Amino acid sequence: MDKLISRRDLEFLLYEVLEVEALTQRERYRDHSRQTFKDILDVAYKIATEHFASHNKKNDQQEPYFDGEKVHTNPEVKAALEAYRQAGLFAATHDYELGGIQLPYVISTAYGAFFKAANIATASFALLTAGNANVLRKYGSPSQQKKYLLPQLEGRFFGTMCLSEPHAGSSLTDILTRAEPQPDGTYRLNGSKMWISGGDHEVSENIVHLVLAKIPGGPPGVKGISLFIVPKYLVNDDGSLGPRNGVKMAGLNHKMGYRGIPNCLLSLEDAVGELVGAPHQGLSYMFTMMNEARIGVGMGAMALAYTGYLHALEYAQERTQGRRLHDKNPASPAVPIIQHPDVRRMLLAQKAYAEGSLHLCLYAARLVDEERTAPTPEAAQQAHLLLEVLTPVVKGWVSELGIKANELAIQVHGGYGYTRDYNVEQFYRDNRLNAIHEGTNGIQALDLLARKVGMEGGAGFRLWAGAIEETIRACQVHSSLCGYARELEQALKTTTEVTQHLLNKAAQGEVERAFANAFAYLELFGTVTLAWLWLQQAQKSIGKEGAFYRGKLEAARYFYHYELDKVPLLAARLQRLDDTFVCPEQDWLVES
Amino acid sequence: MDKLISRRDLEFLLYEVLEVEALTQRERYRDHSRQTFKDILDVAYKIATEHFASHNKKNDQQEPYFDGEKVHTNPEVKAALEAYRQAGLFAATHDYELGGIQLPYVISTAYGAFFKAANIATASFALLTAGNANVLRKYGSPSQQKKYLLPQLEGRFFGTMCLSEPHAGSSLTDILTRAEPQPDGTYRLNGSKMWISGGDHEVSENIVHLVLAKIPGGPPGVKGISLFIVPKYLVNDDGSLGPRNGVKMAGLNHKMGYRGIPNCLLSLEDAVGELVGAPHQGLSYMFTMMNEARIGVGMGAMALAYTGYLHALEYAQERTQGRRLHDKNPASPAVPIIQHPDVRRMLLAQKAYAEGSLHLCLYAARLVDEERTAPTPEAAQQAHLLLEVLTPVVKGWVSELGIKANELAIQVHGGYGYTRDYNVEQFYRDNRLNAIHEGTNGIQALDLLARKVGMEGGAGFRLWAGAIEETIRACQVHSSLCGYARELEQALKTTTEVTQHLLNKAAQGEVERAFANAFAYLELFGTVTLAWLWLQQAQKSIGKEGAFYRGKLEAARYFYHYELDKVPLLAARLQRLDDTFVCPEQDWLVES
Repeated sequence: MDKLISRRDLEFLLYEVLEVEALTQRERYRDHSRQTFKDILDVAYKIATEHFASHNKKNDQQEPYFDGEKVHTNPEVKAALEAYRQAGLFAATHDYELGGIQLPYVISTAYGAFFKAANIATASFALLTAGNANVLRKYGSPSQQKKYLLPQLEGRFFGTMCLSEPHAGSSLTDILTRAEPQPDGTYRLNGSKMWISGGDHEVSENIVHLVLAKIPGGPPGVKGISLFIVPKYLVNDDGSLGPRNGVKMAGLNHKMGYRGIPNCLLSLEDAVGELVGAPHQGLSYMFTMMNEARIGVGMGAMALAYTGYLHALEYAQERTQGRRLHDKNPASPAVPIIQHPDVRRMLLAQKAYAEGSLHLCLYAARLVDEERTAPTPEAAQQAHLLLEVLTPVVKGWVSELGIKANELAIQVHGGYGYTRDYNVEQFYRDNRLNAIHEGTNGIQALDLLARKVGMEGGAGFRLWAGAIEETIRACQVHSSLCGYARELEQALKTTTEVTQHLLNKAAQGEVERAFANAFAYLELFGTVTLAWLWLQQAQKSIGKEGAFYRGKLEAARYFYHYELDKVPLLAARLQRLDDTFVCPEQDWLVES
Repeated sequence: MDKLISRRDLEFLLYEVLEVEALTQRERYRDHSRQTFKDILDVAYKIATEHFASHNKKNDQQEPYFDGEKVHTNPEVKAALEAYRQAGLFAATHDYELGGIQLPYVISTAYGAFFKAANIATASFALLTAGNANVLRKYGSPSQQKKYLLPQLEGRFFGTMCLSEPHAGSSLTDILTRAEPQPDGTYRLNGSKMWISGGDHEVSENIVHLVLAKIPGGPPGVKGISLFIVPKYLVNDDGSLGPRNGVKMAGLNHKMGYRGIPNCLLSLEDAVGELVGAPHQGLSYMFTMMNEARIGVGMGAMALAYTGYLHALEYAQERTQGRRLHDKNPASPAVPIIQHPDVRRMLLAQKAYAEGSLHLCLYAARLVDEERTAPTPEAAQQAHLLLEVLTPVVKGWVSELGIKANELAIQVHGGYGYTRDYNVEQFYRDNRLNAIHEGTNGIQALDLLARKVGMEGGAGFRLWAGAIEETIRACQVHSSLCGYARELEQALKTTTEVTQHLLNKAAQGEVERAFANAFAYLELFGTVTLAWLWLQQAQKSIGKEGAFYRGKLEAARYFYHYELDKVPLLAARLQRLDDTFVCPEQDWLVES
């Protein structure tokens, strides 16, 4: 067992639950079939196993270093991404004219999970490049696309996103990087950019930085932020590389995990930049990338949770220890620990988190395809709105579950799991980042409650609720699922009431009290969402033979017994507008 | 601010809440006073800061290594323990005749927290030695005490506990190490011992291993386990060191954290051992050490949670980011993040966990003193029983809270917290061990539910409940505390009912279903215990002036609003005898 992501589970989710084969009826995907999907997944799995998983531990143990001139990564990183490049995976989802094969996004998301499970750091080079390319595809001029997009789709240039600055992470309003217009139409950028993954390295020929900066004289706050292309090496009109641009390595961050990709502080010193699109629209352009990056973060968290689960599952079947609780005879043989209830608790939680999160991530990716290829503009808009609501859940809640899952994977391994001889401690360290980057989970919670569920008059929320109601209706007829359906119905009703209550209070001016427990709201919303998806999985498993489907039904049972039961508790915390966390005039918290 | 443990808080807990000054009325402690306690705490704090904290990061970055002959640790480890030794801290709690100063255990526990917060790895050498010494003090022969106890109290020899074997961690029944009796009264030991902290090093003159092994022909299972002293170097009758014993380093474990102390696989090859006490009584002797070690583990988890909290608290006051939720003006200055509700949530949770856990650890330590010096044998026996019940809570629940606290400390720091430039990621890695070693938390949960709360007809449980009722009665008269008192009363009633229900079912033979949710029981019991202690802290704070006491009242509020509210949920999970985690004949879980 390679222990990345279960292929069986992936096929169950793609074909039996999400019915992605239907996408091949769409014009854009007409050349595809379940067979082409399988071929690509096979190729990706092979590359992930042979070229990515094989240096995951080395990436952790020998992190990138800066010699004062260049950033050095392990040579296996470049080799792995070359295999990825040769398989055409950088461009796969793009148009034929751009060198792509018009693969559905949901399939690229599926194979992305293999790479992330195998080696989250090396996979991130590709992820960031894909996100960068998508911004340029949507907003870049033809000349910019030729110079910066195509080489990324060919895998020759890699991309980054440069948003944060040392003093401004969550609050982009406060960025200080300035872009001065030049007579030739370019800009000169000066400032510092922090937390830049893949910010410098020798893995690709060039690096395309997408940089947020302010053009002097623009409006204050986020409305004055513009987006620029700032390459590491200037690119001539014929595509050849010019001199090095004013993007200087100012330092590498040394992280707890996720070590194989350099994370940099970059100094922009009269760096030449090209404006993307119109001035002052940078943040909305960048959100194209950030939303995708956020799904990518959720995917990463899920993939680490998933591979950790498979490692724990294997260990629990091999490791023997003690006897069943009812067996007091010391002469009985020791049993595999998978037979102990507390170990099963930890495995079932991991299974429910990992497989449920994979479902959610694929569902979100399916919405991206829907947004792009839906038969009507209304359907596309609906997919867009639902995706807006789900993005903070995919990023924020999946990454919380991912940490829990990896914590449990270590615990199943006991002392062995705490050693670097096994893999699970690295997953745990790697995964800890996912609750932080691309907007901390506190920010995601506020994004969900204070922006997304109320946007367009609550339209996204209603779409979410409507989708859940559909599943409830479909399951009410099953004698063995109607109990879950009833519980989900009640949970949805509770969530709807709580949402209305909080948004009303905020509208009445009690903003801080209404949003003070945004994190509990994320937990509530995330839990109901996962319960909904687990009911779908149960629905598609019922009546089918074999341990795989039985496992799905049992994981659904776990989720309803041990996760969805938190709904009344979370709702009560929100409903009472508790002001425990609202800062008073005289802050007693500072004294300890 | 040194950010180890708040001295102010420690004094509040020791003197205002636990009233430890009353101990100085006891014969054993008659030479002590609040002043002597203060002097010792001052000395310890100074050593912890100057000698322990100063190399904590180095210990993490440069872990011990084995050159094939010797295990090398950083020289600072030896220097720190030498300062500890010179201050007389190895022997402090012991009798005058043994070179001690008859310090109450609760005071040594208090200063122990400084060392653990400063450098958990280096502090562990001392902790293990103290535990080893306590076994020899209780069960060693006069000759063994002279040869092995006194040098440990002098800080010249260090101690270990050798229980686990590569194939047997949680299940000591299955250890294979054999001890063959010799004509001269000694034994020859052969076998492998795993996870031995401080198992080999050059820090002390000698290492005294306390080893569990089986004498051939003894009864099966745990009843056939005996305890042996196996020194690294044999000790002559005059105390001088003889030749090296057959204790071989077979490998160092490379851990995720806790790196400064070597953790070893030891091979016993005809090693000379001396039997401690009677044959086949080894496990009960070792439990003396394990119970103390388990309190030590809880203390370590608490100390890391506490120092992590103080780091996060400082950072949250210094770091500015964004504006208050009701302030939409981008021209307003950024505020310190401590003003944001979600950051306050994370800080209050840490405060509640860390300060509540410190209270619990000190309360447990106070019971050790009570057991030793209570005026009547009945009172001593009561302290003993209550301690038996609380030990798995101190070890198991405090270590769960410790991980959560450190996870939140990172989150408050955002991306910076994920880097090794800050300290919190190390705390998180170090603390992850505490849920595993000295019996995993799954084992602690079973120890609590399946052994402790029912032992001696439930006498320990009744003592616990009685102590809580006393606090409830005392707080019912306060208008601002009677609400909490009522909630605690209800929670206690619920816990009592659940406990009775589960023990009845187990007695009726439904052992696996009754105990399948032992972990939820640990959470329930731990949460009620912490709520009880927070009510005590609130009681001692009410009516007192200043931010410190206001902070205590707010932390109590947090605990009742956001932790104790889980009781009905946890109780329901237990009450319904859910068999989700009971392994069926045909295990569907193996297939993924």
